[in-house]
Amino acid sequence: MTTFSNFTYYNPTRIVFGSGTIASIEKLIHTDKKILFIYGGGSIKTNGVYAQVTEALKGHTFTEFSGVEANPHKETLDKAVAVVKNEGIDFILAVGGGSVIDGAKYVAAAALYDGDGWDILEWKHTVKKAVPIGAVLTLPATGSESNGGSVITRAETQEKRFFKSEAVYPVFAVMDYTVMTTLSDRQLANGLVDTFVHTAEQYLTYPTDGMVQDGYAEALLRNIAALAKDWENRRTESWQKNLMWTSNQALNELIGVGVPQDWATHMIGHELTAIYGLDHGQTLAIVLPALLRQLRLQKSKKLLKMGRNVFGLEGADLTEDKTIDKIEALFRSVDVKLTLSEYGIKADVDAVVTALKGHGMTALGETGSITPDVAACILQRAL
Amino acid sequence: MTTFSNFTYYNPTRIVFGSGTIASIEKLIHTDKKILFIYGGGSIKTNGVYAQVTEALKGHTFTEFSGVEANPHKETLDKAVAVVKNEGIDFILAVGGGSVIDGAKYVAAAALYDGDGWDILEWKHTVKKAVPIGAVLTLPATGSESNGGSVITRAETQEKRFFKSEAVYPVFAVMDYTVMTTLSDRQLANGLVDTFVHTAEQYLTYPTDGMVQDGYAEALLRNIAALAKDWENRRTESWQKNLMWTSNQALNELIGVGVPQDWATHMIGHELTAIYGLDHGQTLAIVLPALLRQLRLQKSKKLLKMGRNVFGLEGADLTEDKTIDKIEALFRSVDVKLTLSEYGIKADVDAVVTALKGHGMTALGETGSITPDVAACILQRAL
Repeated sequence: MTTFSNFTYYNPTRIVFGSGTIASIEKLIHTDKKILFIYGGGSIKTNGVYAQVTEALKGHTFTEFSGVEANPHKETLDKAVAVVKNEGIDFILAVGGGSVIDGAKYVAAAALYDGDGWDILEWKHTVKKAVPIGAVLTLPATGSESNGGSVITRAETQEKRFFKSEAVYPVFAVMDYTVMTTLSDRQLANGLVDTFVHTAEQYLTYPTDGMVQDGYAEALLRNIAALAKDWENRRTESWQKNLMWTSNQALNELIGVGVPQDWATHMIGHELTAIYGLDHGQTLAIVLPALLRQLRLQKSKKLLKMGRNVFGLEGADLTEDKTIDKIEALFRSVDVKLTLSEYGIKADVDAVVTALKGHGMTALGETGSITPDVAACILQRAL
Repeated sequence: MTTFSNFTYYNPTRIVFGSGTIASIEKLIHTDKKILFIYGGGSIKTNGVYAQVTEALKGHTFTEFSGVEANPHKETLDKAVAVVKNEGIDFILAVGGGSVIDGAKYVAAAALYDGDGWDILEWKHTVKKAVPIGAVLTLPATGSESNGGSVITRAETQEKRFFKSEAVYPVFAVMDYTVMTTLSDRQLANGLVDTFVHTAEQYLTYPTDGMVQDGYAEALLRNIAALAKDWENRRTESWQKNLMWTSNQALNELIGVGVPQDWATHMIGHELTAIYGLDHGQTLAIVLPALLRQLRLQKSKKLLKMGRNVFGLEGADLTEDKTIDKIEALFRSVDVKLTLSEYGIKADVDAVVTALKGHGMTALGETGSITPDVAACILQRAL
């Protein structure tokens, strides 16, 4: 079996987890900082988070920047970059879900770069420095609150792209699960799916001897399966805090150290969001099963391991297809659809493949086996 | 069920894991630093680590300090403190196992304190600053390479005590598993036992709803059970690197966030090492089963959960005692003894209990239920 490879793991984010922790930002940010308080569409004004944040910031100097949309737009964020530059902002407080935090990372990096911020997403500019960021998480799913990754959309060209840098790890991540009570079922379901797929992207590859990595990933996948099974209790504190902590762990880089990673489901999903406007989580639930059916032989060993260790399949039931059936049933059980047509979308496979090619995504997956032709087959299965 | 509590998690150590990584210290330490290179009894001179470290430090300024013993002595370490103070040392490179790294943490903290270093171990002085530390791990077991804890022995009074501080997290931990090839079977077995018990101290308490914490802990416990079962392959790269990574994870604070913790096995074990000179791992294998038999009702739910999820017990075999049998069999399978008398020690229970009392250890365990009387019962079982 392949042995897991050398790795560096570094995650300096201070996680402050629990009920009532938003007040702690008062002490987590020094009063000599000029803060940009950045948030989304205003839901934090109705759920009480805005009031808690501004109360905690009473002794601080801050400027507000609102209106960061889901799948945050470069065009919107560049306005925040201008504010940071013009007002001498030296701390960015992101309050929201993955979109706001990802957006804050772009702002933090672009503000200390003289060129156009999109260079960062095209990996033409390597981010070595950024304005320090703090995060208050309101919607668990992406793990962005304690990792160095960010996904940004350029509306003008319908592109959704990714960058990562050690410089944009949030200094702190406040994770107060009580803010989840006002989330919709759709948001909770998207969070579940996203967490499952983040983990699967780092687990359903080819086998290695990484016992910690596989053991941790299976623990997270079992958590998601258990939370889905317990969907009727999704309004309890226990359910919500466990989703919040599980989703953080699924994408803080720990489970992926030294092992192969896929990420093709995300790359194809990003195109579907960019072209058809589906939620990120919705695209993942559509693409993952289609991709796994397509690559069931390549991923056979780990599919069987998942079937056994996550879904408890054994004997004649322990097959690649029945494992994929279980994944589909999990998504269905939280009312997430599995095909594009269920959303009323008549997708143009060629257009999606062309977009992938345009972004250089011509050898996706842990072995690079997902060429444009294979991507087309996956999309065909996802229609 | 109890819900897990609020927590802060912060672990800024940069982990550099893999074959050939010792060379990376060249770039991990700035050349303007005056380094104290601290190590143990000289095994690093015969296994090649000393040569690799000095080669990597060629462009650096460093002073050597050797002779840190197992269960490192305050008396020895205070000589290193003097060197740091007198020579203006501003970086400490610890090369060794838990004893050397724990010792380096003491030196780093005591060097920036005007009083006697033992005040730190008596929690009279709170460590807020320390000389920065880097660690090169040669013996996996304690997790000290990426946590803020340290255990120090004062030889004069036969005391073994503990402190922790955010200030003493190593800046980096180089974990090159190829250095493990020269470890003895006894060292590997001690590492296995230590890792198992670290995990158990954070898992075998009372149940909470912490799904990540329990899932991760069970993954680590299963790893140790699998490595013990595969003991005949302990000289392979795969076995050794998995022990190294598992042992790190067992005590980097992640599995213990927000959940009750026991640590009574360690506290009682520390006294046995201080009085009878047993290896740390040896004491843990003696105390843990005795403690679990004594507290089998208090710990019933988690013992049964461990029996099922770690050892695969079911039906009539799923009992507290059979779970403890499995733990004992695991220790036996790597040739570690289970009682003091097997080491030829006629222990004086009263003396050990008196030592515990003298150190304020009169209400040990996750609920404080281990009074001196209960400790005496545990020790009686361990004779």
